[in-house]
Amino acid sequence: MSTSVRYTNNRPAVSTAEAMTLPAGYYTDPEMFQRELRAVHHDMWLSAGRTEQLPEAGSYFLVRFAGVNIIVVRDKNGEIAAFHNTCRHRGTQLCKEQSGKVAGKFRCPYHAWTYELDGRLTGAPNMEKVEGFRMEDYPLGAVATAIWDGHIFINMAERPIPFSEHLAGLDKKFAPWGMADLKMVERRVYNLKANWKLILQNYSECMHCPIAHPQLNKLSHYMSGDNEPPQPTYLGGSMDLRPGVKTMTTDGQSNHANLPGISEEDSRRVYYYAILPNFLLNLDPDYMMTFQLWPMAVDRTDVVCEWHYHPDAIARPDFDPSGAVDFWEMTNQQDWELSDRAQEGISTFGYQPGPYSNREELLTGLDRWLLDRLARHG
Amino acid sequence: MSTSVRYTNNRPAVSTAEAMTLPAGYYTDPEMFQRELRAVHHDMWLSAGRTEQLPEAGSYFLVRFAGVNIIVVRDKNGEIAAFHNTCRHRGTQLCKEQSGKVAGKFRCPYHAWTYELDGRLTGAPNMEKVEGFRMEDYPLGAVATAIWDGHIFINMAERPIPFSEHLAGLDKKFAPWGMADLKMVERRVYNLKANWKLILQNYSECMHCPIAHPQLNKLSHYMSGDNEPPQPTYLGGSMDLRPGVKTMTTDGQSNHANLPGISEEDSRRVYYYAILPNFLLNLDPDYMMTFQLWPMAVDRTDVVCEWHYHPDAIARPDFDPSGAVDFWEMTNQQDWELSDRAQEGISTFGYQPGPYSNREELLTGLDRWLLDRLARHG
Amino acid sequence: MSTSVRYTNNRPAVSTAEAMTLPAGYYTDPEMFQRELRAVHHDMWLSAGRTEQLPEAGSYFLVRFAGVNIIVVRDKNGEIAAFHNTCRHRGTQLCKEQSGKVAGKFRCPYHAWTYELDGRLTGAPNMEKVEGFRMEDYPLGAVATAIWDGHIFINMAERPIPFSEHLAGLDKKFAPWGMADLKMVERRVYNLKANWKLILQNYSECMHCPIAHPQLNKLSHYMSGDNEPPQPTYLGGSMDLRPGVKTMTTDGQSNHANLPGISEEDSRRVYYYAILPNFLLNLDPDYMMTFQLWPMAVDRTDVVCEWHYHPDAIARPDFDPSGAVDFWEMTNQQDWELSDRAQEGISTFGYQPGPYSNREELLTGLDRWLLDRLARHG
Repeated sequence: MSTSVRYTNNRPAVSTAEAMTLPAGYYTDPEMFQRELRAVHHDMWLSAGRTEQLPEAGSYFLVRFAGVNIIVVRDKNGEIAAFHNTCRHRGTQLCKEQSGKVAGKFRCPYHAWTYELDGRLTGAPNMEKVEGFRMEDYPLGAVATAIWDGHIFINMAERPIPFSEHLAGLDKKFAPWGMADLKMVERRVYNLKANWKLILQNYSECMHCPIAHPQLNKLSHYMSGDNEPPQPTYLGGSMDLRPGVKTMTTDGQSNHANLPGISEEDSRRVYYYAILPNFLLNLDPDYMMTFQLWPMAVDRTDVVCEWHYHPDAIARPDFDPSGAVDFWEMTNQQDWELSDRAQEGISTFGYQPGPYSNREELLTGLDRWLLDRLARHG
Repeated sequence: MSTSVRYTNNRPAVSTAEAMTLPAGYYTDPEMFQRELRAVHHDMWLSAGRTEQLPEAGSYFLVRFAGVNIIVVRDKNGEIAAFHNTCRHRGTQLCKEQSGKVAGKFRCPYHAWTYELDGRLTGAPNMEKVEGFRMEDYPLGAVATAIWDGHIFINMAERPIPFSEHLAGLDKKFAPWGMADLKMVERRVYNLKANWKLILQNYSECMHCPIAHPQLNKLSHYMSGDNEPPQPTYLGGSMDLRPGVKTMTTDGQSNHANLPGISEEDSRRVYYYAILPNFLLNLDPDYMMTFQLWPMAVDRTDVVCEWHYHPDAIARPDFDPSGAVDFWEMTNQQDWELSDRAQEGISTFGYQPGPYSNREELLTGLDRWLLDRLARHG
Repeated sequence: MSTSVRYTNNRPAVSTAEAMTLPAGYYTDPEMFQRELRAVHHDMWLSAGRTEQLPEAGSYFLVRFAGVNIIVVRDKNGEIAAFHNTCRHRGTQLCKEQSGKVAGKFRCPYHAWTYELDGRLTGAPNMEKVEGFRMEDYPLGAVATAIWDGHIFINMAERPIPFSEHLAGLDKKFAPWGMADLKMVERRVYNLKANWKLILQNYSECMHCPIAHPQLNKLSHYMSGDNEPPQPTYLGGSMDLRPGVKTMTTDGQSNHANLPGISEEDSRRVYYYAILPNFLLNLDPDYMMTFQLWPMAVDRTDVVCEWHYHPDAIARPDFDPSGAVDFWEMTNQQDWELSDRAQEGISTFGYQPGPYSNREELLTGLDRWLLDRLARHG
């Protein structure tokens, strides 16, 4: 018989660093997730898609995430509107397909309540004898919309903050890229097993780049560039392309012209902006990439990733975006794996908050922003 | 750069109509679902099946839904009894197969506790030395049963209301159809992603028929017929067959004789009765259809649908029920889609209660019935 | 029309027996499950594996169950250590594969925080400017380990009870079997739909053997042998082999020599010990079997089952463990079916606590042990 024992000194964690990561519940507790949705996603401007997805009156697509189902539609005046996808009669989901085109009106498949593209109820069969019933009292639940250079934003709040306050000058800053003109050439959807904040954190520091993204680090040094101080509605910064690198692609080269409006200086940089809470915007010299983060559950997030190019580039017979698509597909997979592993580790009994480095200042900003929002929304 | 914004006036919902649909929680909250089970399904008579499913002593089938597992069995006296499917020793599930035949007794596979078909414990190995233990104290947990013209009902309550009170005269009303004689020729099981009440609502109004069921509406006009006022244990009414239509089939025709006992008047009608909470009964001139609704979760319901014919019709060499089976398969699918879409829409952040029309009087009755039951059962 | 009703006398359950099984919540309530994990699995010594699984420095395997993820590793001194599998920086899971070998250190894949095999943090890139940060404050979360004759145990408590107190003399008792020398020849993993306690209960009485295990009962009479009184850390007893039976195999025979150290008396017996809460140890004359029970959810448990033999037996050209493997595979399946059916029956509305027989004294001991632990851990 032989036994040997190794006891351990499980001292309580010390917090010698100033800024520590959040306790596990912020990443694992379904009730906290609901609180966050109310304080963040039900209150802020969310990226919903691009205006090119809605070519004509009646064109629509759906925005679906945890407990939310919204129709984004182009109305008869060419404006873009958004409505909760639930009939005001008995709640039936009006549109079922992810995108499509309705013939002038939304018609509920159940009892044919009919709504104009601007949300007004104009048909309610068999309601004529209901005392006091007036169609004008039952429009579709409206969701605010805003357009910024082709990007559609929606806001479910009763009184949304002004959209200009949300953009906080980014519209001016990024005007030279001419984003309104760009067209999507590729879309990939990813299903992550990670809390939405972990994906934002992953995006908001490049300390992990030399370890997890050796290919990216060859194109753009992780210590290059600079971050803006954290803002109430966005976190962002830029990184410099290394000498000889033209853009972010598998080999760092490109046969596309740079976007027409950008400066010489910006042709040597890539901008990475997280517009809170669900929009990531990469601006490269010759293309734009967008990410939408859709929280599905406390430990599940869907990410929609798109590549957008200038129509002149797309029109060339030798147009080929695969250098950028393949590069980011590889980089995305590296990042999703890390986010999933962060979720896994944080979800275990052994997790305890850890110290942020001073190179993670955007992450401490993100945590403060979240705690502040949760506090203000009770 | 270009931005455009469309703010919305998200006024709180008005309730100009008298009767409004229930708040979302009644369809989405797992705790409400448990409250409903206690107040409704654990207290009321439930349709369990047909006597023909139990041809001889020892024949049994199981009734399984959210947290419930009951054996319905024919005992040695030919009576139909029902018991909770859990051994009184350590709780083991006694019968595993959905239906079958036991050889005279139920014998627990774990420690061979043995119960007669009337539930009495008559074998309990190794219990002889347990002080005070008496087999008569540990019969199977009994569930009340009742038979109505071949329909088996069960009731889990400690003191069930009299079954005659539950039927409230329907036995007399539907006696002419001779349901006891009918035989099942087809069974289909459907798994809906909808709360059980949405399926009852769908069944209890035909306002949706011209929109969702054009084929049905051709056979039977949705405004025809009449509803009874809502009753404490059932909701129902009839619809008239259009001229030239013989019964509810794909083409409205049939080569079966009408059921022998029905009146000339009833040969021109179809009766649709929801016997609360889980039994839907369609009586056509030449056949009977039954639906059982089994709540599985707040947003999941299994529906068992059966077609029953008179033995004389079945005996004919040219017997073919496919006209009725195909017609209702199509109609069922149309209805299940609507119920699932109602669940989907009600489950979203944008749902708010809406106004009932005066043609939905059975639905307001259903809501009142539910609220009353919940109030009485604390 | 015909109706017949059978009312029932649903008397409240009587408790004539002294010892009754636990209420359903102990087997079905997710919150109770969390309480149990805290009171039992986070506090007690758990079987984790065998030292032979860690042949050299850097060899590791993971222990994963509900909310727990632990690395068990051999360090550079040849000692076995264990750590929570979560980086002290941002919580990332360090090791992903179920087992493997790390090259001298654990390196987080996210930001390259690097830990020695003894858990010390020795690399934390980009932390140098963080005021007050000291690497010695952020070792991996340590988990106590102990070795007993080749069995590795771990303990997550802050102040584990002494391992010798846990073994409570079993090390001395089972020394003759020379378990440290044995080698694993077969491993099977089973996913049960049952609460972990039901598997312990199933193991802790053989009253069910003549009913569920006729083959086993032929080798070893269920009334033979004797149990020790229940102990705070284990439950166990032995059963006698029937005349002519050499060991527990399909035919009761074996061409292996008995384990070298055991007595003549012990060559006629099999020992069955449940070392609480997760380790089952079968000692046969010529082999050892081990079971680890890993609670995954209130109604899910994974069981890892292994067969271990003496190296001399394994070295023989005609070595063949299939007699024991096949016998226990059959017996396991019989038992898992019963445990799953117990879970199923206990989870239904009809379950009520039932009386234990006096041959289930280890089960009443188990219940008392659990209630006592829950009481002490608030």
